[in-house]
Amino acid sequence: METKKIRDFQSGDLIQSFFLVKAAEYKTTSTNKSYLDLTLVDPTGEINAKLWDYSTETEPKYTINMLVRIRGSISEWQNRLQLKIDKIRTATQEDALDIGDFVPVAPYSPEVMYGEIEKYIGMIENADIAKIVSTLVAAHKEKLLLYPAAKQNHHAVRSGLLYHITTMLKMGEKVSEVYVSLNRDLLFAGIILHDIAKIAEMNASELGIVSEYTVEGELLGHIIQGIKMIDQTAVEVGADPEASLLLQHMVLSHHYEPEFGSPKRPMIPEAEILHYLDIMDARMYDMGRALEKVEDGHFSDKVWLLNNRKLYKSSVKSSREYKEPDTLF
Amino acid sequence: METKKIRDFQSGDLIQSFFLVKAAEYKTTSTNKSYLDLTLVDPTGEINAKLWDYSTETEPKYTINMLVRIRGSISEWQNRLQLKIDKIRTATQEDALDIGDFVPVAPYSPEVMYGEIEKYIGMIENADIAKIVSTLVAAHKEKLLLYPAAKQNHHAVRSGLLYHITTMLKMGEKVSEVYVSLNRDLLFAGIILHDIAKIAEMNASELGIVSEYTVEGELLGHIIQGIKMIDQTAVEVGADPEASLLLQHMVLSHHYEPEFGSPKRPMIPEAEILHYLDIMDARMYDMGRALEKVEDGHFSDKVWLLNNRKLYKSSVKSSREYKEPDTLF
Amino acid sequence: METKKIRDFQSGDLIQSFFLVKAAEYKTTSTNKSYLDLTLVDPTGEINAKLWDYSTETEPKYTINMLVRIRGSISEWQNRLQLKIDKIRTATQEDALDIGDFVPVAPYSPEVMYGEIEKYIGMIENADIAKIVSTLVAAHKEKLLLYPAAKQNHHAVRSGLLYHITTMLKMGEKVSEVYVSLNRDLLFAGIILHDIAKIAEMNASELGIVSEYTVEGELLGHIIQGIKMIDQTAVEVGADPEASLLLQHMVLSHHYEPEFGSPKRPMIPEAEILHYLDIMDARMYDMGRALEKVEDGHFSDKVWLLNNRKLYKSSVKSSREYKEPDTLF
Amino acid sequence: METKKIRDFQSGDLIQSFFLVKAAEYKTTSTNKSYLDLTLVDPTGEINAKLWDYSTETEPKYTINMLVRIRGSISEWQNRLQLKIDKIRTATQEDALDIGDFVPVAPYSPEVMYGEIEKYIGMIENADIAKIVSTLVAAHKEKLLLYPAAKQNHHAVRSGLLYHITTMLKMGEKVSEVYVSLNRDLLFAGIILHDIAKIAEMNASELGIVSEYTVEGELLGHIIQGIKMIDQTAVEVGADPEASLLLQHMVLSHHYEPEFGSPKRPMIPEAEILHYLDIMDARMYDMGRALEKVEDGHFSDKVWLLNNRKLYKSSVKSSREYKEPDTLF
Amino acid sequence: METKKIRDFQSGDLIQSFFLVKAAEYKTTSTNKSYLDLTLVDPTGEINAKLWDYSTETEPKYTINMLVRIRGSISEWQNRLQLKIDKIRTATQEDALDIGDFVPVAPYSPEVMYGEIEKYIGMIENADIAKIVSTLVAAHKEKLLLYPAAKQNHHAVRSGLLYHITTMLKMGEKVSEVYVSLNRDLLFAGIILHDIAKIAEMNASELGIVSEYTVEGELLGHIIQGIKMIDQTAVEVGADPEASLLLQHMVLSHHYEPEFGSPKRPMIPEAEILHYLDIMDARMYDMGRALEKVEDGHFSDKVWLLNNRKLYKSSVKSSREYKEPDTLF
Amino acid sequence: METKKIRDFQSGDLIQSFFLVKAAEYKTTSTNKSYLDLTLVDPTGEINAKLWDYSTETEPKYTINMLVRIRGSISEWQNRLQLKIDKIRTATQEDALDIGDFVPVAPYSPEVMYGEIEKYIGMIENADIAKIVSTLVAAHKEKLLLYPAAKQNHHAVRSGLLYHITTMLKMGEKVSEVYVSLNRDLLFAGIILHDIAKIAEMNASELGIVSEYTVEGELLGHIIQGIKMIDQTAVEVGADPEASLLLQHMVLSHHYEPEFGSPKRPMIPEAEILHYLDIMDARMYDMGRALEKVEDGHFSDKVWLLNNRKLYKSSVKSSREYKEPDTLF
Repeated sequence: METKKIRDFQSGDLIQSFFLVKAAEYKTTSTNKSYLDLTLVDPTGEINAKLWDYSTETEPKYTINMLVRIRGSISEWQNRLQLKIDKIRTATQEDALDIGDFVPVAPYSPEVMYGEIEKYIGMIENADIAKIVSTLVAAHKEKLLLYPAAKQNHHAVRSGLLYHITTMLKMGEKVSEVYVSLNRDLLFAGIILHDIAKIAEMNASELGIVSEYTVEGELLGHIIQGIKMIDQTAVEVGADPEASLLLQHMVLSHHYEPEFGSPKRPMIPEAEILHYLDIMDARMYDMGRALEKVEDGHFSDKVWLLNNRKLYKSSVKSSREYKEPDTLF
Repeated sequence: METKKIRDFQSGDLIQSFFLVKAAEYKTTSTNKSYLDLTLVDPTGEINAKLWDYSTETEPKYTINMLVRIRGSISEWQNRLQLKIDKIRTATQEDALDIGDFVPVAPYSPEVMYGEIEKYIGMIENADIAKIVSTLVAAHKEKLLLYPAAKQNHHAVRSGLLYHITTMLKMGEKVSEVYVSLNRDLLFAGIILHDIAKIAEMNASELGIVSEYTVEGELLGHIIQGIKMIDQTAVEVGADPEASLLLQHMVLSHHYEPEFGSPKRPMIPEAEILHYLDIMDARMYDMGRALEKVEDGHFSDKVWLLNNRKLYKSSVKSSREYKEPDTLF
Repeated sequence: METKKIRDFQSGDLIQSFFLVKAAEYKTTSTNKSYLDLTLVDPTGEINAKLWDYSTETEPKYTINMLVRIRGSISEWQNRLQLKIDKIRTATQEDALDIGDFVPVAPYSPEVMYGEIEKYIGMIENADIAKIVSTLVAAHKEKLLLYPAAKQNHHAVRSGLLYHITTMLKMGEKVSEVYVSLNRDLLFAGIILHDIAKIAEMNASELGIVSEYTVEGELLGHIIQGIKMIDQTAVEVGADPEASLLLQHMVLSHHYEPEFGSPKRPMIPEAEILHYLDIMDARMYDMGRALEKVEDGHFSDKVWLLNNRKLYKSSVKSSREYKEPDTLF
Repeated sequence: METKKIRDFQSGDLIQSFFLVKAAEYKTTSTNKSYLDLTLVDPTGEINAKLWDYSTETEPKYTINMLVRIRGSISEWQNRLQLKIDKIRTATQEDALDIGDFVPVAPYSPEVMYGEIEKYIGMIENADIAKIVSTLVAAHKEKLLLYPAAKQNHHAVRSGLLYHITTMLKMGEKVSEVYVSLNRDLLFAGIILHDIAKIAEMNASELGIVSEYTVEGELLGHIIQGIKMIDQTAVEVGADPEASLLLQHMVLSHHYEPEFGSPKRPMIPEAEILHYLDIMDARMYDMGRALEKVEDGHFSDKVWLLNNRKLYKSSVKSSREYKEPDTLF
Repeated sequence: METKKIRDFQSGDLIQSFFLVKAAEYKTTSTNKSYLDLTLVDPTGEINAKLWDYSTETEPKYTINMLVRIRGSISEWQNRLQLKIDKIRTATQEDALDIGDFVPVAPYSPEVMYGEIEKYIGMIENADIAKIVSTLVAAHKEKLLLYPAAKQNHHAVRSGLLYHITTMLKMGEKVSEVYVSLNRDLLFAGIILHDIAKIAEMNASELGIVSEYTVEGELLGHIIQGIKMIDQTAVEVGADPEASLLLQHMVLSHHYEPEFGSPKRPMIPEAEILHYLDIMDARMYDMGRALEKVEDGHFSDKVWLLNNRKLYKSSVKSSREYKEPDTLF
Repeated sequence: METKKIRDFQSGDLIQSFFLVKAAEYKTTSTNKSYLDLTLVDPTGEINAKLWDYSTETEPKYTINMLVRIRGSISEWQNRLQLKIDKIRTATQEDALDIGDFVPVAPYSPEVMYGEIEKYIGMIENADIAKIVSTLVAAHKEKLLLYPAAKQNHHAVRSGLLYHITTMLKMGEKVSEVYVSLNRDLLFAGIILHDIAKIAEMNASELGIVSEYTVEGELLGHIIQGIKMIDQTAVEVGADPEASLLLQHMVLSHHYEPEFGSPKRPMIPEAEILHYLDIMDARMYDMGRALEKVEDGHFSDKVWLLNNRKLYKSSVKSSREYKEPDTLF
């Protein structure tokens, strides 16, 4: 009986371990047999699991974000591993588990990343801009520490929003060293605020898993919500109206194309750059994930998030020593 | 009688000076009066000039890239200055002029920028890639020193292609410090080669002014031409076929959208980044020019190159000390 | 010497009368002759006028919104009448003119139309919605009385915005009699507020002529501005947040397509209807104007505002007695 | 044993009742077990039913539009009710059933709605137009009484076409009271005829259920077919050619966009209005159905017919007394 | 004094000759001088001509399709020849001119081409199809002999429609020799009828010059008109309804794309081929004209009719003996 | 026990025969039963087959391109025949089978078609063009004899590429008889070379079945690959650069639209024609296949390859004697 992590499972393994339920569906076969279909995660990966002859009437209901203890066996079918459940129970207080140990998270601690953001706010020299940004960030600190950047797209992990922002800030600093006429205050502030209203657009659990969009998120969207947040905050802190307006414009235009949600295209260079930093970071994240399991000299499957492209993992290597991304901070 | 530069002309000035002819047209009014319509440049700007009652039959022809000496007066009409020509003659050897002193140029010397490119080639660690790039750059050094990056779009100045490449290399280096898994060899090589075939797509004078596209440029375009150049060079220097193939793919995909000339979208992260560095540099260049003469708190006219957007010159200033772009190198 | 109105001018007439300057340009011919090119209006129409050998240096400047007295003659060229100016002067206080008598206006008095809006506000039964709407309308009464609905498109006349709103309210009432499950409170409120921020998007003179967009209008647009106005007002009057949110959603979605400025499509039936009432009223206005001078059985020229369509004026008549539009109120 | 209507079924019910078969498929499970999969309707709703171990060789075939008597039990799986069939037989003459009692129908009787159309024809004052319309309507009365407006889209119920037309006529009358210069004769005639050829485009049973498109419907479509019908009828009744032509143009342009089947856009105001009345009625119908089962303050699923939008059911209510739609006539 | 043809004019020539007026405009310069601006044609080409100080009040009006006698001189400006008119008069009966000698015409005589069409009709074996086609062709013989295929596009010359049809028939015969399963009867009939209603869509003079579209042409278009013509004719001659329907479908679908006027795409192979033969013939015609005056190894200007492409005239020649197109018949 | 061909199978047949495996998948039912799902072909058609209770662990693996002997029974379910496998084994050398007898092939022998191509090369009069083409064709003869024209689209059969080329050559010859100014050398060469790099874009087995795209095929595509092949070959054989360039341009532009892979549109008439011959041949092939099993007077299902159109099989027949396609050569 093993307590391996998901990443290490092999066909034939007998497993006894805790998992977090990421999705649960009660299904029936075409011959009317009912079963429970689970997606289980631990921090190393995810696996599909099935419990046969399950009945919702006689047995407990398993739902998203629950911790469960499972005994079962791993088999392979069509190149994919599957967990056949023999026994399942919900975790209890006696198990003394920290649910946070089971969810996919950003590679840095939220506190470190939040500190990074504060560092960049400290670099903003225009007092009005600094006030708007620091007020908003502080007011939403709790959610910022946990929220992913999306429900399903890029950076959809716990603290993914912070991870997205901090990487973009790093890039923003670099870009401003090359294009020296850029107003760094606007650029840093725009980066920090561009997706701030995602915390108002989506409902996320404390695990950083989004269950649904809010009513206001559906009816207005995070771009409009963000503009209103900036507008109100600027009035409250008595900031220069033009500073507020420019930040609102940056949020409004950062998706660039009307069909992606931006009714106005960038009209200042900082808004233009904000857009490209945003899209580059999303692409690097999605490409990194898509290529994770591809072997050198081979193609990934088509990736829906990347315009349905296949990606290629080159076997042409540089001898440059690979720096771990966590050397970033 | 003044020898002011164009940038300093004022209505009422009497002018006697040398200019470079950037465009010359022989026109007739609706009442059948013929005149010569010139666009004149010096390194500080350009101005429209008119010579009335000009006849192509009795007087010399004035054409593009000619140096001329002109005496005339400046008047203003509808907010624009105009030069009314009283006397005009072509410059002669006795005038001892260097035509290069009259054209708009990149802000750095071609030699310095060429040296920058060599520096980055020196940083490429993969020998196959380095060989391909250095061979191609050396083979086309003469044209590279002079060519603009375009006939009319961004970086359409003498040595504009070098300027575009070197700025992108600077950015490429920065980006690879944030996204550390990028293969810098491919990225630097892709940046250097992405527009290399512009020298085969366009005919430019030694002044870096493009007169027309070549026949092959029209029928194939610089993307296809660049792929063939890389392919042939790689075979000649005996480089690894995959290295060659990836560079070709980067050139092929760098316009990103089929309707902009890329039949394939980027399939490796380095190609993705190449595209965004290319477009960001073009945008920063075009936005910089569009905002040059706009006052704080005002909008530019609609800029055709920027999807017909107006740009806004913010009056929200950072106190960050402005670094001159020439601190770049 | 005649004092005819523009609508009645004929070739050969000698004219002496007052006009409002709608546009003024100082032009030069290709042979360097300067002249003044004016667009003159009175409430019956507009005409092009030319003053030859005009010099900005020795003569007064004529600009938009000025009242002028002109003596001249009417000639016809290529089917269009033109006024050749012999004498021109600006109107003085002694002329005792009311500039308002010279601009194209909506067919009803602003006060009557404003009263109509108040009547419909009175029909709103939901107190929260009524409060939001009445507060906003009252706060902006002064501008509402004068503003056109656009700079150049449909309803670009003084009080055109009121005219647009009141006609739509009439239609909204009718529609709610057929589709009885529509929430009339939302529909009336949405109609009244959908373009309310046009008064913040454009700068209009007291004549209802728009000179330019405001900075915020350019950077955000009236849809976003309107949402913020509703949001703030709702907070101030302590209205139900969902009522406020739905009105914001109606404003956000009323252009329907992202490329026309609506990042969200209507998600409630009242927003759907709002869109169609808006577009129908614009189309009826533009079609009416385009067909004004077309004879029965003939086509108009292509109308740019109507997707470059030609319109046809049918000669198939109903015997239904024609009701003047002013029976509307 | 219950004889409840479908709308009232609950899990655990034992059912014995008559139903109309709306769809029947003979399926096999992946393990090769054959079963019968039925969609059953009564006027209150529809339900999926399954008969296990069914064999087409030994048992009767069940097909669309058949009346069947079924005994079985209701169970719930994944929030949906399902009928497990124990016994099934086709209804016989002895059962004395009226199949018409089992299909979804428009909310008004066909005769009443047909009478409405006649009333509006009576309001057409232009004799030529009246003749064309009345001749066509009378000639196709039988099918008009039964046909739906579509196979699957809006108004796909028995007499749905009549329902669509009469609601639009009501709206047409209202619109002409606001936009008084509209030619009501053309508008009423256009409304009545715009979809008239749907009866030639589709084959519908006497239950108003469309089984397929006709060959001519596939090769030409109802817009072209409608134009030919008007053209021929106008010739037969000796109507004014221009009246006929305008009605043909209204039919041709009523889908507005080429990609939706209209090669010409509306060129007369009445055709413009016809288009908007058509689309508004479709939208109100589809939105009404989509929101039917949604609770206040919640969203519907994405609705494919409505550009894949979710709809929101507002909880902001007006106190206006709700008028039943049947007060329409 | 010369009587050269237009094709042979050179700068400096003094000209005295007859021309056909293809376009006439009365213009005024910006300094208020009026002149007459003519486009003159003879069968060899066209030239712009100007008559200065022309007054419509004291001199005769010159209009389209008039024959005029002109004396004047040829000058060159900006690479284009221009005719300065010294004397002009309208041709009189005494001049004994045949206007037909002055218009651009198809390269074969209308009678020969009409005979070709009759030959192909004779090859149609299906009696119903043959009857429909021969009836329609005979009924419209007079116009067919003269009409161009378009107002401005391809084959816009006298008898251009016949020329277009006969070339396509030739191609249709060839294609059916390769794709032997094609129904030649449908293909030949579809070719002959696809544009037949152009004679009802446009008003052309007996010179084959189109002055305008008919009202029905504007409101319905030749595709719809053609369908109605086939429908009516088929009924009159008692033809098989499916034969008629398929021909209508071919006409309906021959523009292929909705945005080019075809609401249905081809559903039979013969309709598919019809489309490609139509477009190939148009392209060969337009490309031929665009390349007419281009020298080997050079590009044409951008051709609006060809998606704004430039065309290249290759200098790579085959030694194949050039066959004159008139060997076609 | 029968040895019928697939085309002749009927429900109830007991079958014992050899087949080629075109696709093999190991599947599991929702109740965890594993089975083998095969697509079997012989030259007359294909059929789905299932082997129940199959285990990859105890039984041999069956894969694409394997020959197998099967005993089983035919049943019908939902209008489709299915083969239930009782016994299966791989064919052995003793079975003495020629795998080539089992694959779908072009209707002519590869040698005959290759000979056709050589015949047309012989008709090319320009020596440079002839050299380029003959060199390339000879160099790739082996693959040309076998390759299909696509993985799944038109001409996806063994030797399909040759079949596609030879039919187009036939058409090219015909077209050049009508449009006599076309350069036949370019046209024939362009036809032969337009898809030549498909042999480098795809990996095909000796059966002409494509398993996948090559790395270079994915990263560059056959259009770019073809251009490079022509470029290199032209240099090797010392051909005229313009001849080489024009052939490259024809390959580059033959997909016509950027979104289909052609960054440049045709700029010479021969390239324009090449495109249309290519698309017509693809359409005739796909339409022929789609209509194969449709009865007269009925529609096919929607065909994805043909813009999701249904096709109609007309019952209007010509009495023209049907010529078998094999009379082509």
